[in-house]
Amino acid sequence: MPSRNEVELHNSHKDCWVVIHNKAYNLTEFAKEHPGGSKIIYKFAGKDATNEFSKFHPPDMMDRFLKKEFHLGSTETIQPNSCKTRMEAIPRPPLSSILNTFDFESIAKEVLSPDAWAYYSSGSGDEITLQENHQAFNRIFMKPRVLVNVKKVDTSVELLGTASALPIYITATALGKLGHPEGEVVLTRAAGTRGIIQMIPTLASCSIDEMVAAKLPQQAQWFQLYVNPNRNLTIDIIQKAEKLGVKALVVTIDAPQLGRREKDMRVKFENDAPDVQATESLSRNEGAARAIAHFIDPSLSWDDLKWIKACSNLPLILKGIQCGEDAVLAAQAGIEAIIISNHGGRQLDTSRSAVEVLQEVTQALKHSKLENALEIYIDGGIRRGTDIFKALALGAKAVGLGRPFLYAMSSYGQRGVEHLIVIGLNDRIYCAKSLKLP
Amino acid sequence: MPSRNEVELHNSHKDCWVVIHNKAYNLTEFAKEHPGGSKIIYKFAGKDATNEFSKFHPPDMMDRFLKKEFHLGSTETIQPNSCKTRMEAIPRPPLSSILNTFDFESIAKEVLSPDAWAYYSSGSGDEITLQENHQAFNRIFMKPRVLVNVKKVDTSVELLGTASALPIYITATALGKLGHPEGEVVLTRAAGTRGIIQMIPTLASCSIDEMVAAKLPQQAQWFQLYVNPNRNLTIDIIQKAEKLGVKALVVTIDAPQLGRREKDMRVKFENDAPDVQATESLSRNEGAARAIAHFIDPSLSWDDLKWIKACSNLPLILKGIQCGEDAVLAAQAGIEAIIISNHGGRQLDTSRSAVEVLQEVTQALKHSKLENALEIYIDGGIRRGTDIFKALALGAKAVGLGRPFLYAMSSYGQRGVEHLIVIGLNDRIYCAKSLKLP
Amino acid sequence: MPSRNEVELHNSHKDCWVVIHNKAYNLTEFAKEHPGGSKIIYKFAGKDATNEFSKFHPPDMMDRFLKKEFHLGSTETIQPNSCKTRMEAIPRPPLSSILNTFDFESIAKEVLSPDAWAYYSSGSGDEITLQENHQAFNRIFMKPRVLVNVKKVDTSVELLGTASALPIYITATALGKLGHPEGEVVLTRAAGTRGIIQMIPTLASCSIDEMVAAKLPQQAQWFQLYVNPNRNLTIDIIQKAEKLGVKALVVTIDAPQLGRREKDMRVKFENDAPDVQATESLSRNEGAARAIAHFIDPSLSWDDLKWIKACSNLPLILKGIQCGEDAVLAAQAGIEAIIISNHGGRQLDTSRSAVEVLQEVTQALKHSKLENALEIYIDGGIRRGTDIFKALALGAKAVGLGRPFLYAMSSYGQRGVEHLIVIGLNDRIYCAKSLKLP
Amino acid sequence: MPSRNEVELHNSHKDCWVVIHNKAYNLTEFAKEHPGGSKIIYKFAGKDATNEFSKFHPPDMMDRFLKKEFHLGSTETIQPNSCKTRMEAIPRPPLSSILNTFDFESIAKEVLSPDAWAYYSSGSGDEITLQENHQAFNRIFMKPRVLVNVKKVDTSVELLGTASALPIYITATALGKLGHPEGEVVLTRAAGTRGIIQMIPTLASCSIDEMVAAKLPQQAQWFQLYVNPNRNLTIDIIQKAEKLGVKALVVTIDAPQLGRREKDMRVKFENDAPDVQATESLSRNEGAARAIAHFIDPSLSWDDLKWIKACSNLPLILKGIQCGEDAVLAAQAGIEAIIISNHGGRQLDTSRSAVEVLQEVTQALKHSKLENALEIYIDGGIRRGTDIFKALALGAKAVGLGRPFLYAMSSYGQRGVEHLIVIGLNDRIYCAKSLKLP
Repeated sequence: MPSRNEVELHNSHKDCWVVIHNKAYNLTEFAKEHPGGSKIIYKFAGKDATNEFSKFHPPDMMDRFLKKEFHLGSTETIQPNSCKTRMEAIPRPPLSSILNTFDFESIAKEVLSPDAWAYYSSGSGDEITLQENHQAFNRIFMKPRVLVNVKKVDTSVELLGTASALPIYITATALGKLGHPEGEVVLTRAAGTRGIIQMIPTLASCSIDEMVAAKLPQQAQWFQLYVNPNRNLTIDIIQKAEKLGVKALVVTIDAPQLGRREKDMRVKFENDAPDVQATESLSRNEGAARAIAHFIDPSLSWDDLKWIKACSNLPLILKGIQCGEDAVLAAQAGIEAIIISNHGGRQLDTSRSAVEVLQEVTQALKHSKLENALEIYIDGGIRRGTDIFKALALGAKAVGLGRPFLYAMSSYGQRGVEHLIVIGLNDRIYCAKSLKLP
Repeated sequence: MPSRNEVELHNSHKDCWVVIHNKAYNLTEFAKEHPGGSKIIYKFAGKDATNEFSKFHPPDMMDRFLKKEFHLGSTETIQPNSCKTRMEAIPRPPLSSILNTFDFESIAKEVLSPDAWAYYSSGSGDEITLQENHQAFNRIFMKPRVLVNVKKVDTSVELLGTASALPIYITATALGKLGHPEGEVVLTRAAGTRGIIQMIPTLASCSIDEMVAAKLPQQAQWFQLYVNPNRNLTIDIIQKAEKLGVKALVVTIDAPQLGRREKDMRVKFENDAPDVQATESLSRNEGAARAIAHFIDPSLSWDDLKWIKACSNLPLILKGIQCGEDAVLAAQAGIEAIIISNHGGRQLDTSRSAVEVLQEVTQALKHSKLENALEIYIDGGIRRGTDIFKALALGAKAVGLGRPFLYAMSSYGQRGVEHLIVIGLNDRIYCAKSLKLP
Repeated sequence: MPSRNEVELHNSHKDCWVVIHNKAYNLTEFAKEHPGGSKIIYKFAGKDATNEFSKFHPPDMMDRFLKKEFHLGSTETIQPNSCKTRMEAIPRPPLSSILNTFDFESIAKEVLSPDAWAYYSSGSGDEITLQENHQAFNRIFMKPRVLVNVKKVDTSVELLGTASALPIYITATALGKLGHPEGEVVLTRAAGTRGIIQMIPTLASCSIDEMVAAKLPQQAQWFQLYVNPNRNLTIDIIQKAEKLGVKALVVTIDAPQLGRREKDMRVKFENDAPDVQATESLSRNEGAARAIAHFIDPSLSWDDLKWIKACSNLPLILKGIQCGEDAVLAAQAGIEAIIISNHGGRQLDTSRSAVEVLQEVTQALKHSKLENALEIYIDGGIRRGTDIFKALALGAKAVGLGRPFLYAMSSYGQRGVEHLIVIGLNDRIYCAKSLKLP
Repeated sequence: MPSRNEVELHNSHKDCWVVIHNKAYNLTEFAKEHPGGSKIIYKFAGKDATNEFSKFHPPDMMDRFLKKEFHLGSTETIQPNSCKTRMEAIPRPPLSSILNTFDFESIAKEVLSPDAWAYYSSGSGDEITLQENHQAFNRIFMKPRVLVNVKKVDTSVELLGTASALPIYITATALGKLGHPEGEVVLTRAAGTRGIIQMIPTLASCSIDEMVAAKLPQQAQWFQLYVNPNRNLTIDIIQKAEKLGVKALVVTIDAPQLGRREKDMRVKFENDAPDVQATESLSRNEGAARAIAHFIDPSLSWDDLKWIKACSNLPLILKGIQCGEDAVLAAQAGIEAIIISNHGGRQLDTSRSAVEVLQEVTQALKHSKLENALEIYIDGGIRRGTDIFKALALGAKAVGLGRPFLYAMSSYGQRGVEHLIVIGLNDRIYCAKSLKLP
């Protein structure tokens, strides 16, 4: 039970204590292997790092990852400042004037700190896939039918047996506290009031316990899984998620090595103000994205799906399918659903847009007589109700949105997210179920 | 017969009297269901609202829609100010320097009030269809023939048996008084002097009686019909139109729910200056477009055409066909003419351009051996004489223009509209009838 | 033999005398039918109009077109001012720094008066065809062969039996004195020194006599013909041209009505400063282009080619073919050569580019077994040596350039035109004749 | 052994002595035929030209090309100033912040002198091919497979039997000292430390001896050859290169006449400040590119390959193949490898991109059953790791980069070049060898 005064004495690279959430830790050893680099830890040697820590990590992070021998025990309790959030400090137009996802994005760009904006908005390479994801929708033209009774429309849908008010879910995105001081629980609450499914992110700033605790009694959640090189750790996580009542397991398979998100890397680099002559710091200045990559196993392959299925009764969703061949493999492997996704244009640049792949996937499955073997979801570039309609018309059962929810959360909090669900997207999808053409 | 002084006493939400065209009305009840929102009515509680009212509605509006019990009778007569119009107040180049429709558009943007410009010019969503309507013409290239005698050319045409000096008609557009203090009668008069057909809009600022009264003896008009949820009301309107001598009935079928015209919504929102915290005002801030939508029946279907045909001897034109299949259905339903239209890009964004659909329609009709079953018109994006020629060459019998006429009317009044018909469009269509190729 | 003092007394609309080239004319009647409008003539009522007249017309214009009764005879001789030309007054980079046709264009835009620039550079409508003419070349990619001996290259060619140093000719363009005080004879001289053919324009600022007089002994010229509604006048012109020794007759067939060149019209309009209220002036404000259109017969047809052929032994070239069908008709009519041309994008906008039509023409002729029946030339958008190569590779025997020569002439005079021929274009066409591939 | 004082007396066009690298030369005769023009030589008449000379030429240039009678012998030795290089004088961001080839390009543009930038960056004509080279890659979309074990990846490859750490080589580019005071040996050293092959340029600023001397013991180099009109000279060069231990001979065949690189020509022109009236200087102001063209034989043809092969045992690589037909001819001629290249967009503008040609070449070889007859390399527009992957996936065995290496060398010297190899390109090519798809 070291005092804060005592902690202050351990303030060097060779002897580095830090206080987080009123507990002291000896990070001398850990600093060297910190995925986000040692520099940021040394900056807080002998100090309270709670504010900075909270921007990236859930409160249970230290319990989960730091060896017990480095836990030094509690110290004097200090309440965090209840200062105004950036969101509140910056003038924003009234929420009712926000008409679409692009409006939220514009405001989020103002409200977010530069590093948060860089992390959320960046794509890999030249961001060709990032742009293409949405542009591909704009190249698909509609063929409206007329004189069809559309007085009553029903937008609800069942996803893997779970009811959803809309064919939309909130897909997993990392580091929610960069955008909102409460983090991903904001999304949980809005998903609950509006009746849609939230995918719980592995790399959330909130812990899975917090996100499950924030949900309404009947509210459904999926759990995203990055498979860890340590398989036992992965099994523990799966079993915990199952116990907490999630409805499906989403295995992310499109990031064996994280993409080069240069916008993110540049901001990280500027913040670190590195030595002009240094070249050896290469592996460190890779932004928020790379810092979290060491938890992902690059050797994951189709065979691994067997033991994942074996250790849980939950339906399995594969996130990151990008061609017809792999969709067929997924169906043959007994997977319950796939998500066509290029990781929001954050992985391999010049990958095809999700909606272009969708058309290949439905044809490949049909050709293999597997069109009913699994459910197809899609994410990437969905910004308009018409985009949703097009995805559904082309064979998707639901669509995931990531950035639009982050931007709505970052600029207006929970009511922003709710507003997005209601007005931004629930506009033109009514046709999907009600069409009975002559 | 309340005095204006008496009216002034009823100036609250709970007791709201208003004077319009020298008559007093009790709008306390009606304010709550006013399609344009209650706010605008409360603003004139106890006052004379004639100026504002006239910008949107024809003089007979109250007689047609307000319950008799709320009519309070005449009050002291006040002549409207004969102030200069915006058009006259703003410096404009001489009409003879206007060379094309784009010139009119540029000037109209200056002359019109911001809300009028927003209402007239806006398209739905990202305005992709709005742009595409015209751009599609620019992608169609001409194949001029040479050494053909073009000394005499004849641009006249018969539309449903009615002669027209040009293969052009003025299509229906709403709220003409936003652009010109006299409203749609300006278009009526110019159509008369130049010998083309005007389609009388349901949602005009002038009443149908005014528009019929403004026409020349032999001048032909069509009557646009939005089918009301109250079918008896619709039958009354049809019979009145027939009695007034219109030559055809145009049923608009592409707006079962009005499109999101965000440019229009934003201007409306700014004018209303809503409470920053309000989210419940969502359904109100939807611009001029949505305010008029409650008169349209979303359940309208092919079956309804039968009773519409049954209650009138007028030829029936369906406005809003957007694919070959529906064109065939229209022909099979005994419809006399169709208008291929996406409502000027104001309904479902990313719908195909009218001229692209035209090619599908002519093929579908031919394939069903119905190519002679009905006449085909087209509107959307026609801005050049070459656009008209292309539409005719691809199978249309005539084309409708909306915004160009509004812009000409708004910037120069009747002589602007006449100028548009003569020089802007009557330029290159001469080939249509005179070609006798070797 | 009226004195200048006497002329000054006839200075009204009703009595309008004018001095041109030291001769007096009574233009009271003619002013009303002057293709360029009466305003410009009234401006010089009672004055010497030589300077303005010379900008547009050759010296023999009055002899050719004004009735003898209005010729009043010679007056006192005044030498024209030998003032500096615009070209000389404006600083220009050294000619040797001019690397391509675009350089000439940039400088010409500075050197030319606004109305000259508007007349030379304008295309019709939205100038889509104007742009497309050149852009179409940029979409055609080359397939270079290697290890071919290109030590000796020969760029000479025979056009209708006449030798040309390059597969290039100077096509006809009107009103050369707008660009250079000496007018088209500048082009004649440069064509002579560099060994290429000049097409003598009907609407030149120099007379045909002047242009023939300016040529070298062996230099070849073609003569452009707009067929006049007065056929006898046309026959006279043809016979005069033949007597003067031109090598071919070029009948322009793509301008039965002149195109709307709005850039030109706007400049004309501004110069005229018309009354703001005037609408009746419509037919007058149509720029330099329309002013010259009354000399062209819109009834010209394939049958007319017979009498044209009958009254001359010269080979006939048809300028303005724009599709395969008409190329076949031309071959069947016994025409010696055709020029695929859309009149430099100045006639029907959204016509296809010349090089796109070229491919259709060669196929159509081949399909009719007429590929050897006539020579094919092409003009429109040729700005690089690679453009010439592409036209030749696709079946043209030579290419015409218009604006580039006007721009070179306007910015540097004769040596500019020569420079253009040598460095701008003679760069990459060497391959045409020397390739002997394995 | 003339003194520097004596040299100063020979300072006119008619008597022009110059000191270079502490030796005096009489350049009176040579000045007239200097490929770079006489002006630059006269500028140094009577003076020491070492600094200017070194920017373009290797030290042994005079020995190789100037007749012995004009060598005047050594003069007083002066050490060159060890002044700061431009690179060091201009503030640059830390190398570790450089994330991709475009970053290097941006900085190089600042660091390089205007004429160096113009020479390195310019393409021919409108630079359409220059742009297309890279843009073509952006139009090729990836099809990522998932759940493939990518824990171990191997990027090494064997090129003509020589091991390379990456499927990348440094292609030949001229005039390296324009970018770095040490010239191409900088590239040699970086290629050595990173294990890739350097192609030694014929037109380097360093001599071949210097570049061979700078390599590591096991380091491999190729030797680029422009075939001289003097065949004996060419044979001497080949035999020297073979003796120096290069691993292959690269015959450049795409520059029988050098392309018009107008950006380069403009800079050259400005530096020369020519007489405004001069037109005869045409052949001189053609930039650095043309100055070096007189050493290249335009008559080179397929037959010549026989004697080239006869005078050396080295494998022969043909650089500049641009169509399938010529690839087949190369294979039939017994060539060991081809490089598909349009000379970096510096030769014939509107040539197709290298990667587009690649697809034609692999098909043509396959069609002739020659797909194993030779190795295929490609250069032009490769700027991203994904570009490399695409080239390999389409059938190339390796890719060459030119400008990116020049830019890295010019902005950061050797460590810049190493950095480029490591982070800029070694990112996403790991998949090439490790994919074992189910």
